[in-house]
Amino acid sequence: MKISKVGIITKVTSPHALETMSALVPWLRQRGISVRIQDEYGHLAGDGVQAVPRSRVLEGTEMALSLGGDGTFLSTARLVGDTDQPILGVNLGFLGFLTELSLDEIYEYLGRIIEGDYEIEERVRLEARHLKNGEVVGSFQALNDVVIHKGALARIIDLETFIDGKKVTNHRADGLIISTPTGSTGYSLAAGGPILEPSLDAIVITPICPHPLSDRPLVVLPDRQIEAHLVSDSGEVYLTLDGQRGVGLQRGDRIRVYLSEKPVRLVRAGMKSFYEVLSTKLQWGHR
Amino acid sequence: MKISKVGIITKVTSPHALETMSALVPWLRQRGISVRIQDEYGHLAGDGVQAVPRSRVLEGTEMALSLGGDGTFLSTARLVGDTDQPILGVNLGFLGFLTELSLDEIYEYLGRIIEGDYEIEERVRLEARHLKNGEVVGSFQALNDVVIHKGALARIIDLETFIDGKKVTNHRADGLIISTPTGSTGYSLAAGGPILEPSLDAIVITPICPHPLSDRPLVVLPDRQIEAHLVSDSGEVYLTLDGQRGVGLQRGDRIRVYLSEKPVRLVRAGMKSFYEVLSTKLQWGHR
Amino acid sequence: MKISKVGIITKVTSPHALETMSALVPWLRQRGISVRIQDEYGHLAGDGVQAVPRSRVLEGTEMALSLGGDGTFLSTARLVGDTDQPILGVNLGFLGFLTELSLDEIYEYLGRIIEGDYEIEERVRLEARHLKNGEVVGSFQALNDVVIHKGALARIIDLETFIDGKKVTNHRADGLIISTPTGSTGYSLAAGGPILEPSLDAIVITPICPHPLSDRPLVVLPDRQIEAHLVSDSGEVYLTLDGQRGVGLQRGDRIRVYLSEKPVRLVRAGMKSFYEVLSTKLQWGHR
Amino acid sequence: MKISKVGIITKVTSPHALETMSALVPWLRQRGISVRIQDEYGHLAGDGVQAVPRSRVLEGTEMALSLGGDGTFLSTARLVGDTDQPILGVNLGFLGFLTELSLDEIYEYLGRIIEGDYEIEERVRLEARHLKNGEVVGSFQALNDVVIHKGALARIIDLETFIDGKKVTNHRADGLIISTPTGSTGYSLAAGGPILEPSLDAIVITPICPHPLSDRPLVVLPDRQIEAHLVSDSGEVYLTLDGQRGVGLQRGDRIRVYLSEKPVRLVRAGMKSFYEVLSTKLQWGHR
Repeated sequence: MKISKVGIITKVTSPHALETMSALVPWLRQRGISVRIQDEYGHLAGDGVQAVPRSRVLEGTEMALSLGGDGTFLSTARLVGDTDQPILGVNLGFLGFLTELSLDEIYEYLGRIIEGDYEIEERVRLEARHLKNGEVVGSFQALNDVVIHKGALARIIDLETFIDGKKVTNHRADGLIISTPTGSTGYSLAAGGPILEPSLDAIVITPICPHPLSDRPLVVLPDRQIEAHLVSDSGEVYLTLDGQRGVGLQRGDRIRVYLSEKPVRLVRAGMKSFYEVLSTKLQWGHR
Repeated sequence: MKISKVGIITKVTSPHALETMSALVPWLRQRGISVRIQDEYGHLAGDGVQAVPRSRVLEGTEMALSLGGDGTFLSTARLVGDTDQPILGVNLGFLGFLTELSLDEIYEYLGRIIEGDYEIEERVRLEARHLKNGEVVGSFQALNDVVIHKGALARIIDLETFIDGKKVTNHRADGLIISTPTGSTGYSLAAGGPILEPSLDAIVITPICPHPLSDRPLVVLPDRQIEAHLVSDSGEVYLTLDGQRGVGLQRGDRIRVYLSEKPVRLVRAGMKSFYEVLSTKLQWGHR
Repeated sequence: MKISKVGIITKVTSPHALETMSALVPWLRQRGISVRIQDEYGHLAGDGVQAVPRSRVLEGTEMALSLGGDGTFLSTARLVGDTDQPILGVNLGFLGFLTELSLDEIYEYLGRIIEGDYEIEERVRLEARHLKNGEVVGSFQALNDVVIHKGALARIIDLETFIDGKKVTNHRADGLIISTPTGSTGYSLAAGGPILEPSLDAIVITPICPHPLSDRPLVVLPDRQIEAHLVSDSGEVYLTLDGQRGVGLQRGDRIRVYLSEKPVRLVRAGMKSFYEVLSTKLQWGHR
Repeated sequence: MKISKVGIITKVTSPHALETMSALVPWLRQRGISVRIQDEYGHLAGDGVQAVPRSRVLEGTEMALSLGGDGTFLSTARLVGDTDQPILGVNLGFLGFLTELSLDEIYEYLGRIIEGDYEIEERVRLEARHLKNGEVVGSFQALNDVVIHKGALARIIDLETFIDGKKVTNHRADGLIISTPTGSTGYSLAAGGPILEPSLDAIVITPICPHPLSDRPLVVLPDRQIEAHLVSDSGEVYLTLDGQRGVGLQRGDRIRVYLSEKPVRLVRAGMKSFYEVLSTKLQWGHR
């Protein structure tokens, strides 16, 4: 499908953001594309270019262009929400798993993409529910991971995990990461989790600094419902989604996680493969 | 389906094997079941009980009963080969992932199973091909894992891995484990790999003592073809299948691994769940 | 040396604390020992038994008796401060590395200890200095560990570490643990650090969930001065000492750590060896 | 001390060895140094240059020059044996922990070293004794590590370890590494062990692929005597020293390990620090 309306979500604090926008917006206009941008770039608004609040940039557009790092991409995915709008990730500096396109490649690939020469890669995402006394008090989505973590001043927490309603184990740990394959190369990897191919259908559960040394990462079926009960704590505990939003938890709270029916749709146009990005990020093959 | 012909594969060296066989074979006969046993138990042969060489025990039987540990089960699976014959695993001592039924439970469950009151759980298995100069010189199957490992006197080996023909990375390591979900709780776990639910569709690649610290376990799609090329060595290198058979490898050899079309079929009759066995084996929940 | 004055520091919230105190205090009095206790136990005060605020319990006593878990012991060590007063650790439930004496053993061992039949085991402890713009703004001691950790809502932090003034590396991680051998079986172990014999002269530096996978635990000489500079953060960062006190850190702050000249002195009277405790805590030898 | 007699041990198979020797030997002769070389380089022999079998190169020399990788250095250390002869390590390609001097730096540093402008850095090494039925049947030394490892076709082995005669634990594993601080960056690191500063006084015990997940690396006092008993095996088991020599072990055999009284003496002349080498080898600080 040809693209005629693009919304651009930018990491405003990046030193390269303004310069890139100043070139990119006219380039898109010259090709007849309508553009919606964040109102931080209001001076670029004009014919066919609308500057609106960030939360409204993706209204009515056909493709989201995420300009920044993987964090910006995750935040763009949240703005896309349950719509089918695909996202193109462009990094403003370091190569990312979700933003393998770099600034010097952008126009070459974008030229093709707006002509409809691209594919869609679907990535599963997680639904998380925060329950208090059996009632859902919060609903969230995450493309990378759902994390339960003690506050820095708190000590170890005790979590009881259930899969499809059956007790699996107790975790005495700093916290717990429930990750998609996409998120497996993020926080989960740093906590000792395995790397999953992004298109695998599975969910990873990785404990963070677990005290029982036999508490190890677990990869479960995609249709599992995972529930973590906060059994005890010695201070603050938080739920975070994709490392970007936080909610305080109390003893007795439950976090229910399962795969969303709506995947995130990535725009791909013959860019780097997962293993090429992985090799670069992990410095594989160097000596 | 009711069971009328059973073949029993036993860990002959187990101290409990003979005693168990002496009770089990008559018990099966009393219920009208034809039994085939290894000729080590020739003294138990008689009407409806045939003692034959181990390799022929499962000819014409409807269910294989594996009496021993997980090792005996793996060896039974090899004897079953590509036939559809299901396997019931009974442990002669310690609980196993494939042999969760213990001696004191056997008659209770077996009574139900021979009446047809059981389910079949399918477990994927791996095909491995040993290639020399592009030609297949050996074909193998494994239910747990395909392992490439240096000899004890050799030093590090260099392997180049490919997924669906594309280079993934170089491994400088003691070796490499390519494991099914079933095998993920075995050698792969000891080498730092994740635990996979047995019914997940995936393959795990776990390096053994890799020198580059960024070389980490990888979980790939079930339809991938994985190839490991032995680039260099400083002594002997071996291929082993389920820890039970070995083949020497030379520089330049390639090992190609992919999921078999024929799964192994386990007999299940309401025994312990995977997580119950896992909790016991890993001592989860103790303190 | 015979003991004639004992101060008892208790985990007041433990369900066994009151009952134990009610028996222990008279037992000590009957043997002519002066006792100082926390004023939560004021009803036990009387001839030779003084109830005072927790911070003053150890004034003028000859031995501190720590009644609780390892956490209580760490807090007792802080109250002992730079005095030479030895500490006897008694656990009120689960065996601890610092509290291997259990309630049912206490009178047997205590009988001997007050007669002078005991040895002193010295454990090194850490000095930590919090520097802002080159000035020391906080001084702390820790028997287990000095931890720098991001807040739960913050993302990764960047720390630059120096040993004796020379740059060692950058850590992109959740945080950093600088641990004594005593602390090596605590948080450092959960974060992937090695176990050190408690009497070894060394300091362990263990990164917490480091993103570069080559960032690994480091064991350094006991006379090293370790400095961690907080280079960047994306939210709150805290310094904690033995998991019990916290101080907020800002970008640019430095934490300087080195071995204290004053060790903590443990009372030992033929109780369990380090490896006996370790085997029990880590469930070694179980199957 | 000025150097007047040098013995050169070379990795003969290195592509750079011959070329380097052809320049290095005359360079040393021009400065009046007597040189002993391996008889593979017999064509370089002449006035003041003796070509002898490798095992005799270091007879009567004042400094050993090791030309190759860390493996060549370890083998040079074995030839030096219990003499006090210091070793200078030069790498013929990749930077090594024991060979941080590269070919393009060699003449600059060597010029200073032969004038006596260098320091000696002592590195502890291990004594290993192989016992059968209580009798010592083999004595070995190792600068890096003493390794007990199953053969590639064998399955797990059971080792019982003792420290100073007291049982510590059972290891169910592929094997066990007993390492010096020098060896901690070698095989032990690949097996999950910590990095120790080379001048630390300690011994590291690292299990290789242990099945009980609580079996973790242990750092013990330098004056400990460590004994590993081979309790059971399912095939071949070998003892190797510095990855270079192997001896078959049988069930019941014991390996006793302790620090040698004679350290290995390294020639240092302001070359790279340990942390500089570590950063380079582990690619610290890259992104």
